[in-house]
Amino acid sequence: MNKIEHIGIAVKSLKNSNELFNKLFGKPHYKIEEVKSEGVNTSFFQVGENKIELLEATKDDSPIAKFIEKKGEGIHHIAFDVDDIVAEIERLKSEGFIVLNEKPKKGADNKLVAFLHPKSSNGVLIELCQEIK
Amino acid sequence: MNKIEHIGIAVKSLKNSNELFNKLFGKPHYKIEEVKSEGVNTSFFQVGENKIELLEATKDDSPIAKFIEKKGEGIHHIAFDVDDIVAEIERLKSEGFIVLNEKPKKGADNKLVAFLHPKSSNGVLIELCQEIK
Repeated sequence: MNKIEHIGIAVKSLKNSNELFNKLFGKPHYKIEEVKSEGVNTSFFQVGENKIELLEATKDDSPIAKFIEKKGEGIHHIAFDVDDIVAEIERLKSEGFIVLNEKPKKGADNKLVAFLHPKSSNGVLIELCQEIK
Repeated sequence: MNKIEHIGIAVKSLKNSNELFNKLFGKPHYKIEEVKSEGVNTSFFQVGENKIELLEATKDDSPIAKFIEKKGEGIHHIAFDVDDIVAEIERLKSEGFIVLNEKPKKGADNKLVAFLHPKSSNGVLIELCQEIK
């Protein structure tokens, strides 16, 4: 794992939260991207070498809608940048982590992604992501 | 805000979680520190320019014990590095954020810290921290 690529935060309204995080960081988001397959609209803020990704559900059965219904707005996941996601999935499986995506899928921001189940990682939803070249 | 200084994760057992995160990152924690005023034992892992801080309660009325009782293990807060914590507290108050510590206090890892109430920041507990020189 090279670094934290981003932290994902579930929000009810991307518009309102973009304004809020603009005030927090003193600078606006640099990108908005819809990920239809996940049922989310996302926006990105740059902070040092990391990104903050705000996630707004675009449909009722989106994982983000369900998360907010259950837990309210808040931190949803931490994503780590990896060089070889397939090798990292194999390594983590052999270490006892539960990998939710045996085969990486296309995520936001031009990435291949896979998630680890929070129950195998101290209640933290972890995303692995590899830049698509 | 210069960068994400660390992400705090509430854990039940520092010993077990140190082993788990050692497997996750492929390297061990580099420091353990008790913060008696907060009723926590902490350990630190370095990932890129950020740290992951694991937090284990040392007494029943510690904020971390209460957090785990209510929500289970998981991400507890995000800490941002600032140059001038007093000025940043004033700026954020003027922007409408609720600051929990009007006067910064001594935290782990040789830092002055102050927290923002999650209800003013999308459900995210935010820590500001300034290195003590």
